Parts: sequence; structure tokens; C-alpha cells
Amino acid sequence: MRLAIVGAGAVGRSVAQLAGEHGHDVIGLADSTGAALGDPLDVPAALERKSETGAVGDADHDDLLGAAYDVLVEATPTTLGDAEPGFSNAVAALDRDRHVVLANKGPVAERYDEIRAATRESAGELRFEATVGGAIPAVRTVEDFGPSRVERVRGVLNGTANFVLSRMAAEGLSYDHVLAEAQELGVAEADPTFDVDGTDAALKGVIVANVLREARGEDALSLSDAEVAGIEDLPVSALSLAGDDGRTVRLIAEASPEGVRVGPRLVPENGTLAVTGTQNIVQVETAHAGRLNLSGHGAGGPETASAVLSDVGRLPPR
Amino acid sequence: MRLAIVGAGAVGRSVAQLAGEHGHDVIGLADSTGAALGDPLDVPAALERKSETGAVGDADHDDLLGAAYDVLVEATPTTLGDAEPGFSNAVAALDRDRHVVLANKGPVAERYDEIRAATRESAGELRFEATVGGAIPAVRTVEDFGPSRVERVRGVLNGTANFVLSRMAAEGLSYDHVLAEAQELGVAEADPTFDVDGTDAALKGVIVANVLREARGEDALSLSDAEVAGIEDLPVSALSLAGDDGRTVRLIAEASPEGVRVGPRLVPENGTLAVTGTQNIVQVETAHAGRLNLSGHGAGGPETASAVLSDVGRLPPR
Repeated sequence: MRLAIVGAGAVGRSVAQLAGEHGHDVIGLADSTGAALGDPLDVPAALERKSETGAVGDADHDDLLGAAYDVLVEATPTTLGDAEPGFSNAVAALDRDRHVVLANKGPVAERYDEIRAATRESAGELRFEATVGGAIPAVRTVEDFGPSRVERVRGVLNGTANFVLSRMAAEGLSYDHVLAEAQELGVAEADPTFDVDGTDAALKGVIVANVLREARGEDALSLSDAEVAGIEDLPVSALSLAGDDGRTVRLIAEASPEGVRVGPRLVPENGTLAVTGTQNIVQVETAHAGRLNLSGHGAGGPETASAVLSDVGRLPPR
Repeated sequence: MRLAIVGAGAVGRSVAQLAGEHGHDVIGLADSTGAALGDPLDVPAALERKSETGAVGDADHDDLLGAAYDVLVEATPTTLGDAEPGFSNAVAALDRDRHVVLANKGPVAERYDEIRAATRESAGELRFEATVGGAIPAVRTVEDFGPSRVERVRGVLNGTANFVLSRMAAEGLSYDHVLAEAQELGVAEADPTFDVDGTDAALKGVIVANVLREARGEDALSLSDAEVAGIEDLPVSALSLAGDDGRTVRLIAEASPEGVRVGPRLVPENGTLAVTGTQNIVQVETAHAGRLNLSGHGAGGPETASAVLSDVGRLPPR
């Protein structure tokens, strides 16, 4: 397949670097300042240019959106509300009957019904495995079992919050202390708000709920429909109290056809949900096959790029 | 899709019962005595007949193999060596350009290169998710990441052996005692040899190794290539010694492009591999996405049928 990649952050760059190994050509890569095109694109040269000058190239975004790709990989940062520019980029590709693979959560969390409507009008397909749980095949597992036969999905969907909670519990250190440490380690971003306040986990929960609801003929949800609490005010004493009882605290997202809830929850200390560090876990409750547990790296450039490229691999040829 | 199901044990019956919910028609079901055909087949009536008379119907197997199905579901018992009758049933369908979905491990564990050769000659496709880890999407995850980018797969692939080991460790009871208990509960079969001697786990390991080897241009393996040890001679003292050190024992299968090893291994007591009861777990080591852990019900009629029907759902239309 010929890929055009919008977004040259960790995920976009990794997709560009790993595409060849998966048998695909990159014909364009865009960052926030412009784009680089080629047939195929010289990816190492474009990334070198970006690290030297801050820009992958001097072509226009519109040239990239109009180029001869089979698949548009949308990897710009997730935005709330109108989900732009990701939403318009995805729709532009679908309008041209091209496939779209999202790493950007916005279009499927905030405007699911609209992006699905655009997909129905298109000969292209839409995939978004990378938006939930990084490398973990969460969306595909739900799709393969059939969303109408999946009753509920629950899990740890934010690695930063999980790292903070794991360290607080293991070391008896305060939230502020551990968060500062996580920022030094590069595990938490300079502004970790969406990770620790539950927004990021809630967006992933909304995406899963939308898949479950679509199969049942229900309208899609958006972030504003989710019930969300974060971990910013969790005292370390709550973790030691939990520990005395063989439990610990995790930021758990729950998605069902009825809705989405995210918040700190008590879970058994050595139980399946108590993954440690930046790991994520997804529990899928099925009607006929019981509960499936899927865990692994929930973020990271190559990990998320692997999910994007798995999606590409499952697209029908054009 | 129109399904013909060969084998009316727990898995074949569950596929027949759940097919309609997945949007498929059953047009034939065979047991060891004969077959029932219909367009579509009245599944409840055929299963009722089987429970009353011991036979699903009085049609011939050959009528079923020659019927107008899109997909042959091969769910006869796994046999070693020539893998018959599963192998010939599958080849008969491929020769007619029909898809084949295996629940029977034999054809892909014992005669992988031959069944792959028959698939290459066919317009039909071959899938076999249900042969490894029941409901756990092990084969699909390897395929989606790309078998050439999967370095190793390790896990607990036999629920009976895992039940026995979990109970021995938890209760300090002997192997013979726990096995008898498992037989009473229906967790172990009357003849549990292949479960406790490692054969069943090794067959699953060989199947995974064959997928990894095919991607690297290596010849397939069979059971005789695997290094296999079972749990029959494991003294309960070994489990208590392990427990004193925070560890326990699990029957672990390891598959890599180099080969397959199965045997009892020490694992951390609260670690990811130490699933309890009849649970299975599969760890997939990927080149770019780290380690994925997939756990769930590794056996059972509806669980395994769900994997079969997921495979059917991913087949291209005929």
C-alpha cells in the first residue's frame, strides 16, 4: 500500500520508519509546518531534515491530502470538541475513496457518527486500533468476536496514570513527588493534565463504547457523556489503606453500550487489573467466550505504529 | 456464509448453535456415524436427534463434503501422525475452492506444509485460530503483527494441566488426588494423557512455530520435533519448595522459529504466567511492540466456537 502520514510526532515518525518492513511505501509525511512528498518518499532524509530544521519539507498539506496514496494515516494530536484537524483530514481522504487509519482519537471519540457516515459514503475503510491501548489488539478483538456479542470492556487505558499509581503504592510516595519523577523519566508529559484527570482514558472508553453502541443501533457518545474522575487528589494514605487489605488503586475505564465511567477503583493487589508501570490492560467480556484479558504497552511510538500497520495490513487492496 | 460442520462434539455443536447469531447458515453437520443436510439445516432438530439416537442424521459424509457450503468447519478430534480424517476433509474442501476453518489441531500441527500447499492451489482460505488457546486471539495477533516480526510465543496452553498444578499448589494435594478431582468435575477427561503429558500444549506450540517458520521460509515442524515433558511425575513437594521462594510451577509451552519446548517451569507466583484454574495465557514477543499478554478460556465448546466464528467472519466473501 502507498501511505500518506499526517503528523510527525513519535507515532507518525515510527509509522514512516516501520512501513517499509511491512511492505508498504510512504509517499508523504506532514508535520505542523508543511509536508514532504516523494514516490516513494526518502523517509530518513525527511526525518533528518525535520530534526535539523524543524520541518519535514516545504510542500503544502493540501498537496499531501491530494496525493496518490491508498491509505491516509492520521497521527496529528488528539483534540477535543471538533477534533480538528484530524477529522477534516480523515474526511478528505474518505471523500477521495481512500482508506483511513487513525492514531488520533478525536474523530472516533468526539465525532463518531459523522466519521462513520463519511465512511459509508466512501469506497475506503476506516480503522482505529491504535487509538485504544497502543499495541494491544483491543478494537480488533471486539470486532472479531462481534461488537453485539461484547457486553463490556474494562481496563487500565493510561500508562502515565498507572505508572504514578504503581509508584505511589510501591514506595509510599505522594502524588506530586511521583509525578515529578515521571516527568523527569519522560513517562509523563510536561502537561500531564489529560493523563491524570482521566480524559485520555475516557476518550478511549468512549471509542470502545461507540463500537458497542453502533452494533446495537445506538447513537454515538462523546467525551461529554462520560463520567470521569482522575487521580490528582488521591492521597497516598488511600493506597496504604488499600494495601493493608490486599488491594491497590488503579484508574479504571469501563465502557458498555450504556456509557463510559472512568475513575480510581480498588482492585486486588495481585489481580489481573493491577498491571504495573506504564502497562495497559483491556478486559473484554463476551457473551459466549467469557472474559479475555489483553495487556501490553499502551503507548510509545513503535508500539502504536505497530497497531497502525496491523490495521493497514487488514485493509482490502484498492 | 454457508457452513458445513464436520464433527459434532462440544465445539462442532456450539458452532452449529451460534452460527445463526453471527449471520451464517448451517447447511450440514456430520458426526462419526453420518451427516444431516438441509438448506438451511434445522440445527435444533439435528442435535435433538443426536441426543436421542446417537446420530445427527442418515446422510453420508461424502454428501456433506460435496454440498454447497462456502466454509468447511473441521472439528473432528485431533489425531497424531497422518491427522486423519481431518486432513483429508480439509483438502477435499480446498480442492473445491472452499474456505476451511479448523478447530482440529492435527492438520496444522502434523502436516502444515501439505495443508499450506493445498491452500496455495485453492481459491479458498485456511484459518485455525481455534486450534491455539480457545477463545484467545493468539494466531490472529501473530498474523496481525506479522509473523516475521514475532520473535517468540510462550504460554500456558492446556487448561487441564493448569487446573491440576493450581490446585496442587493451593491445597498441597498430590497429583493423583487432584487429577481424580478434576475428572469428577469434568475438567479432565477420562483419559487425560495428552493434557498432562504435554502433548496437547506441544501441538499448539508446533502450530505457532509453523506460522513463525513459514514467514521465514523454513520447513514446518511436527510433534516429533518438539521437546516435551509433562506434569505426571511432579511431586507436590516441588510445588511447596517453589512456593517458599514466591514461585509456582506451570506447564509452559515455548514456540520460536527455532523450535518448540514444553515442560513444567518455575514462574513467579503472582506473575503474569501464573494464571489459575483452567485459564490459558499466551505471551507474544514482538520486534517493535514489546510483549503482549493474552489470557482467557483456552477450551470449552462456546469459547472455541467463538474463535471458529471469528475466523469465519474474517474470510473474504466467495
